[in-house]
Amino acid sequence: MSGTDLASTDPRTGEVRTAQPETPAGAVDAVCAGAGDLFQERLSSWDAPDSGTSEPSRLLRFLADQLDRNRDELIAVLDRETALGSARLAGEHARTVFQLRAFADAAGTDRVLQPIVDTADPGRVPPRSDQRRINVPIGPVVVFAASNFPLAFGILGGDTASALAARCPVVVKGHPAQPFAGALIEKIIADALAAADIDPRWLQVVHGGSVDVGRRLVGHPAIAAVGFTGSTAGGMALVRVAAERRIPIPVYAEMGSVNPTFVGRHAAVERADDIGGGWAGTLAASAGQLCTQPGLLIVPEDAADGIVSAARAALSQADIIPMLAPRLAETFAAGVERAASVPGVRMQRLAQPDSSGCAVPAAIGEVDADTVLAAPELLEEIFGPAGLVVRCPVARMPDLARAIDGSLTAAIFADPGDTEWARGLIPILRTRVGRLTCNTWPTGVSVGWATVHGGPWPATSVPHGTSVGLTAAWRFLRPVAFDGFPLDLLPAALRTPGE
Amino acid sequence: MSGTDLASTDPRTGEVRTAQPETPAGAVDAVCAGAGDLFQERLSSWDAPDSGTSEPSRLLRFLADQLDRNRDELIAVLDRETALGSARLAGEHARTVFQLRAFADAAGTDRVLQPIVDTADPGRVPPRSDQRRINVPIGPVVVFAASNFPLAFGILGGDTASALAARCPVVVKGHPAQPFAGALIEKIIADALAAADIDPRWLQVVHGGSVDVGRRLVGHPAIAAVGFTGSTAGGMALVRVAAERRIPIPVYAEMGSVNPTFVGRHAAVERADDIGGGWAGTLAASAGQLCTQPGLLIVPEDAADGIVSAARAALSQADIIPMLAPRLAETFAAGVERAASVPGVRMQRLAQPDSSGCAVPAAIGEVDADTVLAAPELLEEIFGPAGLVVRCPVARMPDLARAIDGSLTAAIFADPGDTEWARGLIPILRTRVGRLTCNTWPTGVSVGWATVHGGPWPATSVPHGTSVGLTAAWRFLRPVAFDGFPLDLLPAALRTPGE
Repeated sequence: MSGTDLASTDPRTGEVRTAQPETPAGAVDAVCAGAGDLFQERLSSWDAPDSGTSEPSRLLRFLADQLDRNRDELIAVLDRETALGSARLAGEHARTVFQLRAFADAAGTDRVLQPIVDTADPGRVPPRSDQRRINVPIGPVVVFAASNFPLAFGILGGDTASALAARCPVVVKGHPAQPFAGALIEKIIADALAAADIDPRWLQVVHGGSVDVGRRLVGHPAIAAVGFTGSTAGGMALVRVAAERRIPIPVYAEMGSVNPTFVGRHAAVERADDIGGGWAGTLAASAGQLCTQPGLLIVPEDAADGIVSAARAALSQADIIPMLAPRLAETFAAGVERAASVPGVRMQRLAQPDSSGCAVPAAIGEVDADTVLAAPELLEEIFGPAGLVVRCPVARMPDLARAIDGSLTAAIFADPGDTEWARGLIPILRTRVGRLTCNTWPTGVSVGWATVHGGPWPATSVPHGTSVGLTAAWRFLRPVAFDGFPLDLLPAALRTPGE
Repeated sequence: MSGTDLASTDPRTGEVRTAQPETPAGAVDAVCAGAGDLFQERLSSWDAPDSGTSEPSRLLRFLADQLDRNRDELIAVLDRETALGSARLAGEHARTVFQLRAFADAAGTDRVLQPIVDTADPGRVPPRSDQRRINVPIGPVVVFAASNFPLAFGILGGDTASALAARCPVVVKGHPAQPFAGALIEKIIADALAAADIDPRWLQVVHGGSVDVGRRLVGHPAIAAVGFTGSTAGGMALVRVAAERRIPIPVYAEMGSVNPTFVGRHAAVERADDIGGGWAGTLAASAGQLCTQPGLLIVPEDAADGIVSAARAALSQADIIPMLAPRLAETFAAGVERAASVPGVRMQRLAQPDSSGCAVPAAIGEVDADTVLAAPELLEEIFGPAGLVVRCPVARMPDLARAIDGSLTAAIFADPGDTEWARGLIPILRTRVGRLTCNTWPTGVSVGWATVHGGPWPATSVPHGTSVGLTAAWRFLRPVAFDGFPLDLLPAALRTPGE
């Protein structure tokens, strides 16, 4: 038993409160074993169709109801622990409730289960047997909650919801910087499970701040897959633990992302104030602590002045909240300092209105394309309210797009006169990201079937997945084919006469 | 330049012939860089629809034509190098040609590209933006050809065909034990490329027997994914190389698989001869060198005698070809010896008709369930003409099913009276495999949309994929969402008005 108490820092004041102890190793093991036992006990029930009535589907709806019921208290507890503000947290609450219900509706549908029925074709050369395939749950899933979206990517966020929609039992570790919110959400879960009369092993919460708890969860033999949102270092550490198991398992880690935005010449000239101001808004909102924050703004070198002026003016007037935790504030300051120290970077830090708690000075840097291409560290994410404007000859933009590692998103701003320019850039950007936005900032991600919140490394550890949107459930499913089976031994969803 | 010459052993005689040298390191790098350059050069052309007219689709068809044209010579060269026999090789040839054409037809279809169009819904809470998603090629793919299916899983096998169908340039390493076939297939590729007037960087072959060539291919920065079929040790070595890259990439390795078969009591009694003889046939065919060979036959303990007798009788009369290579024969002998040395295993080796070349004695072991459950090494694959009959109380079959690591396939043999027994076992077996067959041996895998040739570790390194069937192309694609784009900047496949 490690017995470390978790601590919560008020980002506004720096006040530290001690919360619940870390879950002891024995309890972590018991929780994982329980998830594994439940998965085995429920195997036969899976063959029945899930028209929203399976235990995990019902749980998703009851969780949404309980989140609604505890809305105000939850927002108050989270605001004290995150300083994100009640308006932002209310929006995130609505999105999270919607997401839970959307996954409850999606569970058991053909879009999730992807059934394919190929009846026998003995005359084909070579002949085809009766093959029917469907997605089945991968097994118990461990989820690591993120801190920057304490609800949407938190204990009851998209990873948990999508794993439940895949009918996988979930063990979720709350974020150690938000232990009071974690305790309240644990109570919300207990109430939902009791109200729905559902086996509590479907969704279990552990608490831990040490590396040991994470290693123990990912290493447990009952666990079949992992969902994680956080830093590249944290995600890759879990990837390594998973690879060293006797039976390796997939880790879906969403990690670092610089999210480049490219501006066409006409857009830069015609909409300098809008674009500069809008970009500054994305740096300021939530203190820039968004996975999709556009950290690089690539602007035609001869049309950049207006955008840079507008961005600096807007950012200097923005009311920027403190960062989520002291460690993030330190990492941010070091990141800005590292970028500023590269010769050729002109970094402007904004006066810090309030130095208490986790407040940090926002910053905008300027640099030319040659400098960036020679100093790839400038292409790394700085998590927080900072961005870099790259003054770039239009002809060099493709080189810059190719030099950027994988990101969750890229944006282009293009006026009608920029269409040919956009046509040249989009095919390159498509190779670097999971999602492209046009004339809109990528910070808002709506939840649907077409959503992709993923991308090549280091945006994620598995380039095929998405951690937002309804196909996120695919990460926790795998296909099984039934070959030559009589109809009465097939899962219900495959008992059609065939195509 | 390493300069090691590859060598080919005639499995029937042991005669060794020296073939072409290993591809030098510089040439390996140049080939990978060429694939990367081609991928970049072709990015814009991807946005046009592929109605079978893209370069890789055309190449797939020309490859099929050239394979047809060189059929007899290829079978002769392969028979000398593999001893698989011309009938088996002719069947595999037909299947491989079919597979190439099927992937040419599949490329560019909605089933491969999986487009999803969600038009904007501003009234939804939260609002939904216009999101459209489609699968895009992951980038250049390295393929490692297998030796046991020198055509279907070879240089022009399913990994290569599915990567081309995903519009990824392919670099493929021929199997080092089949260098003469490799040289002929390289010429077939050159002829197809010339006949179709297609850039040769779409499909390039390298030769190598050393670990260095494999490491170099997987480590090259231009490479985005890997397909491999072979041993668990070989596959996991490549997984590690891929994980240690600056930018890790996915490795789709199909590796070891024990493929359990469970027999119901009624089937065991009523069809003892059929089942025993059929099982022996799968051990004997191609000297048991099939990924889906059912290495474990689990039979009700009180109904096993008839099946064991039939299997031994059939196997002793079977004409068993030599194994593919001296190393495989050695590994097989060691595997049989290891299993035979476990107390409680009664191993019967068949008299060896011919000890020249790579001939090995086939073997059938008998063991009870308790012994297997206490000695998990008996659940490991023995690649070659050997199998283990497990005499198992029916009530313990679920425990045995759970104890088996991931396999490509499992089979059940069930008569009408065994239906309830089958209903209890199928949900468990479903968690262990990618494919279940009923009353049929799993060694034949037909190529279709519903095909799954994959499964949990160690059957594969990525449990979501399949290396046979048309959705094998999904492994080399990843989704990209376009958010808020005007129709004229979207890929052709997403320019629909929406659902």
